Amino acid sequence: MKRNAVVLLSGGLDSATTLAIARSEGYEPYALSVAYGQRHAAELKAAGRVAKDFDVVRHQTIEVNLDAVGGSALTDRRLAVPEAPTVGIPVTYVPARNTLFLALALGWAEVLGARDIFIGVNAVDYSGYPDCRPEFIAAFEKLAALATKAGVEGGEGFRVHAPLIRLSKAEIIRRGAELGVEFAQTVSCYQADPQGRACGRCDSCRLRREGFAAAGIADPTRYQRRAPKG
Amino acid sequence: MKRNAVVLLSGGLDSATTLAIARSEGYEPYALSVAYGQRHAAELKAAGRVAKDFDVVRHQTIEVNLDAVGGSALTDRRLAVPEAPTVGIPVTYVPARNTLFLALALGWAEVLGARDIFIGVNAVDYSGYPDCRPEFIAAFEKLAALATKAGVEGGEGFRVHAPLIRLSKAEIIRRGAELGVEFAQTVSCYQADPQGRACGRCDSCRLRREGFAAAGIADPTRYQRRAPKG
Repeated sequence: MKRNAVVLLSGGLDSATTLAIARSEGYEPYALSVAYGQRHAAELKAAGRVAKDFDVVRHQTIEVNLDAVGGSALTDRRLAVPEAPTVGIPVTYVPARNTLFLALALGWAEVLGARDIFIGVNAVDYSGYPDCRPEFIAAFEKLAALATKAGVEGGEGFRVHAPLIRLSKAEIIRRGAELGVEFAQTVSCYQADPQGRACGRCDSCRLRREGFAAAGIADPTRYQRRAPKG
Repeated sequence: MKRNAVVLLSGGLDSATTLAIARSEGYEPYALSVAYGQRHAAELKAAGRVAKDFDVVRHQTIEVNLDAVGGSALTDRRLAVPEAPTVGIPVTYVPARNTLFLALALGWAEVLGARDIFIGVNAVDYSGYPDCRPEFIAAFEKLAALATKAGVEGGEGFRVHAPLIRLSKAEIIRRGAELGVEFAQTVSCYQADPQGRACGRCDSCRLRREGFAAAGIADPTRYQRRAPKG
């Protein structure tokens, strides 16, 4: 029997590959996107295309107005997205974002009777984000067992799958390519334009471009005109 | 020096008392309400009144459309709120609700540089809800230290204060009364009318009414006309 799984889907390259992996492992995916006041809607549109490509059972978007809280260049328009590598945790870090995403996924999983959650976090290239580390994922699994009806009533706990956590960007791209991810559909840029074209200059663009180069796969990303050629 | 704290404020009796306790312990409170598709807005209006009474530094409401996910009588209008005590975990349980609330509070705390979060959960009267137990709170504190910039950069972790967790409803009411909570301002009912008047029949109304009786304090709750007299 196929098992249901909730897959967090941002519309970027990592979460698209994560969805492809969940499918390849035989899960019935329920895709969850979170509209949390990102700077652009192109990412969420991309999530819709990817969800369709992988024929998910359902794709839901939950809106959360994190801009009320601020503190990140991704939700606060007064902060600039850096266009050069930064030292330490970057300003694009959204406070407690993955805790929030996993809490939302956990709620939906509980409603669906699913015990599996997939999240495309990655500890290698994004080592600056604290909530992308394996110990964070393990702590969330422990919390999930205590937080839920399922946990109290006994039976199986929740498993948080983070299949990309120890892969490099190039390895993620190779894996995604094998599984048929249409990378041209995905948007990773922190400041994509309304058509989903990437700036080519932010951290996320840089990591993505270097990843394609290292993987030896042609980069299908659509860049804005101002962007430097890879 | 006064310390900032994020206080989760629903507009009910418990969270109002929790805010009063945070104030009495010398914290500068930042009140956080979550509009998650509750059946009525009266609760959020009550939160606004209570925040004013206790002169919070700021009161923010974050909207999250949990109705997209469903699974609870509090967010899904197709499910009826039970009007008799139920066995096991009631249908008013909102999947992963406190995980979500604490994730949002954690994000704001991190932005504010606060290390203290207050939540009015209670393990005695609401023992049916898994995410109201002390072990859940402890697991969240562990997660918070791993989830955040503050946790990575060293220094103090986050403390989740749940001052009501082992009190009975009567004890909460006595404590709130000592600290000047205007209970008439608060709304606990799962199906209050637009004026904030309580149904008098749901679980939450029953616990509240019994609490006032046990505390020997006159119940100032405004009931709808249909409701039985206490």
